[in-house]
Amino acid sequence: MLLDNTARGVFVISATPFADTGELDLASLDRLTDFYLAQGAAGLTILGMMGEAPKLSPQESSLVLATVMARVAGRVPVVVGVSNPGLSALVALSQEAMAAGAAGVMIAPPPGLKTEEQVINYYALVCTALGADVPVVLQDFPLALGVNFSVPTLELLFARFPQIVMLKHEDWPGLSKLSRLRAGEVQKNTRRLSILVGNGGLFLPQELARGADGAMTGYAYPEMLVEVCRLHDAGERERAEDVFDAHLPLIRHETQPGLGLAIRKEILRRRGAIASAHVRAPGPRLDAIDQAELTGLMARLDRRLAQIG
Amino acid sequence: MLLDNTARGVFVISATPFADTGELDLASLDRLTDFYLAQGAAGLTILGMMGEAPKLSPQESSLVLATVMARVAGRVPVVVGVSNPGLSALVALSQEAMAAGAAGVMIAPPPGLKTEEQVINYYALVCTALGADVPVVLQDFPLALGVNFSVPTLELLFARFPQIVMLKHEDWPGLSKLSRLRAGEVQKNTRRLSILVGNGGLFLPQELARGADGAMTGYAYPEMLVEVCRLHDAGERERAEDVFDAHLPLIRHETQPGLGLAIRKEILRRRGAIASAHVRAPGPRLDAIDQAELTGLMARLDRRLAQIG
Amino acid sequence: MLLDNTARGVFVISATPFADTGELDLASLDRLTDFYLAQGAAGLTILGMMGEAPKLSPQESSLVLATVMARVAGRVPVVVGVSNPGLSALVALSQEAMAAGAAGVMIAPPPGLKTEEQVINYYALVCTALGADVPVVLQDFPLALGVNFSVPTLELLFARFPQIVMLKHEDWPGLSKLSRLRAGEVQKNTRRLSILVGNGGLFLPQELARGADGAMTGYAYPEMLVEVCRLHDAGERERAEDVFDAHLPLIRHETQPGLGLAIRKEILRRRGAIASAHVRAPGPRLDAIDQAELTGLMARLDRRLAQIG
Amino acid sequence: MLLDNTARGVFVISATPFADTGELDLASLDRLTDFYLAQGAAGLTILGMMGEAPKLSPQESSLVLATVMARVAGRVPVVVGVSNPGLSALVALSQEAMAAGAAGVMIAPPPGLKTEEQVINYYALVCTALGADVPVVLQDFPLALGVNFSVPTLELLFARFPQIVMLKHEDWPGLSKLSRLRAGEVQKNTRRLSILVGNGGLFLPQELARGADGAMTGYAYPEMLVEVCRLHDAGERERAEDVFDAHLPLIRHETQPGLGLAIRKEILRRRGAIASAHVRAPGPRLDAIDQAELTGLMARLDRRLAQIG
Repeated sequence: MLLDNTARGVFVISATPFADTGELDLASLDRLTDFYLAQGAAGLTILGMMGEAPKLSPQESSLVLATVMARVAGRVPVVVGVSNPGLSALVALSQEAMAAGAAGVMIAPPPGLKTEEQVINYYALVCTALGADVPVVLQDFPLALGVNFSVPTLELLFARFPQIVMLKHEDWPGLSKLSRLRAGEVQKNTRRLSILVGNGGLFLPQELARGADGAMTGYAYPEMLVEVCRLHDAGERERAEDVFDAHLPLIRHETQPGLGLAIRKEILRRRGAIASAHVRAPGPRLDAIDQAELTGLMARLDRRLAQIG
Repeated sequence: MLLDNTARGVFVISATPFADTGELDLASLDRLTDFYLAQGAAGLTILGMMGEAPKLSPQESSLVLATVMARVAGRVPVVVGVSNPGLSALVALSQEAMAAGAAGVMIAPPPGLKTEEQVINYYALVCTALGADVPVVLQDFPLALGVNFSVPTLELLFARFPQIVMLKHEDWPGLSKLSRLRAGEVQKNTRRLSILVGNGGLFLPQELARGADGAMTGYAYPEMLVEVCRLHDAGERERAEDVFDAHLPLIRHETQPGLGLAIRKEILRRRGAIASAHVRAPGPRLDAIDQAELTGLMARLDRRLAQIG
Repeated sequence: MLLDNTARGVFVISATPFADTGELDLASLDRLTDFYLAQGAAGLTILGMMGEAPKLSPQESSLVLATVMARVAGRVPVVVGVSNPGLSALVALSQEAMAAGAAGVMIAPPPGLKTEEQVINYYALVCTALGADVPVVLQDFPLALGVNFSVPTLELLFARFPQIVMLKHEDWPGLSKLSRLRAGEVQKNTRRLSILVGNGGLFLPQELARGADGAMTGYAYPEMLVEVCRLHDAGERERAEDVFDAHLPLIRHETQPGLGLAIRKEILRRRGAIASAHVRAPGPRLDAIDQAELTGLMARLDRRLAQIG
Repeated sequence: MLLDNTARGVFVISATPFADTGELDLASLDRLTDFYLAQGAAGLTILGMMGEAPKLSPQESSLVLATVMARVAGRVPVVVGVSNPGLSALVALSQEAMAAGAAGVMIAPPPGLKTEEQVINYYALVCTALGADVPVVLQDFPLALGVNFSVPTLELLFARFPQIVMLKHEDWPGLSKLSRLRAGEVQKNTRRLSILVGNGGLFLPQELARGADGAMTGYAYPEMLVEVCRLHDAGERERAEDVFDAHLPLIRHETQPGLGLAIRKEILRRRGAIASAHVRAPGPRLDAIDQAELTGLMARLDRRLAQIG
């Protein structure tokens, strides 16, 4: 089951659960995987930034990979984040992932790249090293990475490297970028890429209207993302937006850089999906005020969802 | 009427209206000033970043200043953005503003500052050059300026320079920063600063709960900001949040870096507050898709407001 | 006398002299202009970053422009830095400069540009607004501006805008970029651009060998830059490098970001070219240790020059 | 043999040799270690940025550590770079290093840190996790890391964490920072830290005059750094500067960001210290022009050294 341009729906960026002491909590990882699938995930993405991948040892990454692949057991495609400062480590993890049954790999540009020519050269290097049969998700996330892709650069990359089948779109602002990519595919008669949006889904209804195929993000209520996509596909756009807007206060809250991961893990913990909200050091922690504030926001969400039925 | 630590409520960051050809539109500036005051603004802030101040000539800045001061006619305090790469220009505009009856000046750190010692030295230079009788609003906006203030640095600045009477708080994430500042005032028994929040008000209810005194931002529906502050002060916090949440999809939309100003001006135009949504070049423009999207969001807001009564 | 692709030699980036009190010192500006011409400058560039242009009022910029144009009196071409956050101010100063007899204008990209598509759009906007008859020098200085140009982007800009006749090349590292640009001109049979190098001339011999036409920089001993270019043209490359290497300790010293301008002005003061080394606030100052260190470096230069004859 | 405040001289930042195919070349690592010691290194620093540490697997890092420790066999202190996005990996490598006989560990701040309070909290976290008996070298390298330390922040860190015994000083410009640190130690009567300078030694004579104790850098002619330090200590400062200036064209060349490592490894290869100049992908490569240019610069160095005797 390899990833291709037709991928749609919600690929949940999986958190990596730890015990309060910082060790991997594989039992929680199983529980979390079940939780994501039960909420309607069309796919999973593991070992991404929000999965604290840079804080895992290679052995731990392998363990996470093996655990999730076994639990998913082929029910949905699994994308594996393999970004790494070194090419050989990137390739090694990719090969391990594909051998374990992954659907593809996700690659963010290294933070040091400055020109778009460097960006293009980087993906050329990586795609060549991986081999053309490994499907690649390109992560376009300038706010976090400091690397920018203009539309012509993306179009050039998609044209040169057919193995790039999906764009994880999290530029900000990025709405017109999405429209331009879709218009370009039509005008130039190029293949239609799978575009899943990130940034916690902060603009999901607008992005679906502009041609996104779904979301790849880790918002702690993935069932909402699934429902919004479903309603959008069914043509019930206002209803989709009603559901989305009910969640927006919490999405906004979870999208805070850095702190957001601690909030996300705490919500997952409260929802019973993981045992501990521990974020590996150095990392953010919620204090008592943060916790009370979150309690208030979650309660407001419940009330609002009850209102809209 | 000089600004002091007790300032509260909503200081609207004023847009600067231009004709479609790019010239200053002073008639619209009068209309806009009236609009802001009619919506309940407790103060105005002119010549800020969102007022396109760096694209005005000194003569145009003087014209804007004189026009607004005449229209406001002392009804509310007016803060004047005076940030400038050169100290002498900053001081000259400050003196002109204070002579014209401004309540104080707003100063953002120059983008090149790297250490917090440099930040402190910069404000020392500026405050000394202005003289201790000119009230200063410190703008803490790392996302746009790339200059960071930690809580100890802010505390040191507030202690050393009593003329800094207000913090325009737009760090992101910034909620715990706000709580720490307020806790520090109590623990160290220092003066309570006026803290108005920026970032389009994106976290206004949470920030009011953590001790903010209001907002200094340019969201195109300032009456909502006013109402949320009023409800908060009246202890009706859930109601405040209901009103706020109705606007959140549009606030989120307007908070997009760069593009947000074009959206804001277009809403102001549609609401009849200015004649043209023109943003000076180089600057963003809304295309037909953006316009239709905005129409949809504004219609949804109207419906939602009707629902909550 | 308009600038064109054939410009060669040393265009000195002129400092802007101030009195110790900060006012413009026009008498020193005349003296400095004479000094630069006496040292063999093939051209002058005024109102650049190192000329503290952002700290001048529009009136002061006009004064500097008029003073230098009158003093130069057509003996060498004068390039005027016109970079500005607003397009209309940029155009206005350009028109004033060209009317006063300037040879062309220099334009750096605004710091906020992120993608190379944005860079291209910016120069399209600017070139169109200026009109095709205004010669443009493109400043490529990522370290100071945070905006990057890859070789394909530069080639595209040069192809689309024939009025861009010169590249001020100060990328770092930039040696292979220079070689690639020159190779590209030959391979694609495009016009040969004038390329003058910046960065204080830190790599001047290597850059001349790779095809640079000279330097556009403000090193306080411009006669060395002139001599190195002359020797290079005469085929005496080792001798050129001997002369250059004698100055390298001081060039390195003057290339320090920020501080370098204070060092440069102090050398110019000691050499009698200006009356005061004042840098406008906020700006760097040399302390006693810095002064003594500079004295030592200047004395070593004199001794070394005596050795090499 | 633990590192302490009295460390002096030249600690060479060791390259990590690879075969042309990219594998670790441990025979070359032995040869390189011998080379550095034969040139007079007072210490070695391994697994730093210039040692391509982020491109090594943990197993490879362990191999490099073991190989160097065995070869050095206690003759000089060895500092081990342990910077890592995750605290647990940082601590694990530190423990492994200290158990293997390392003299201390070098820690750079993670690139994401924004305020100096965050910087202080980070070192607090790390020093506590390491335990007070592990000597720490603090790397202050804003150009590469984007994290800034002001003098007060450094002083606070040195006061709070006695285990920080050495500063790797590579701020730029950094001369007055060095003077301020030394003056502060005297004025406040605090312990005198060991300060070794980086940046390829680009300002070594000036930095020694301002109180540096030596250099920690990887310039491919470490014997020059050693000789300059020796001459400085012997009071022969002009002679020290003569020797240094002869190398300055090549130091400048090697200090080019990114590309510099490829130049450094090529010089080491030509000098017989390693078998291949391979830099792991993604990384820079020298082309034919670069090679010829380097040949010229090395030949000029030889001639100049012959001249000065």
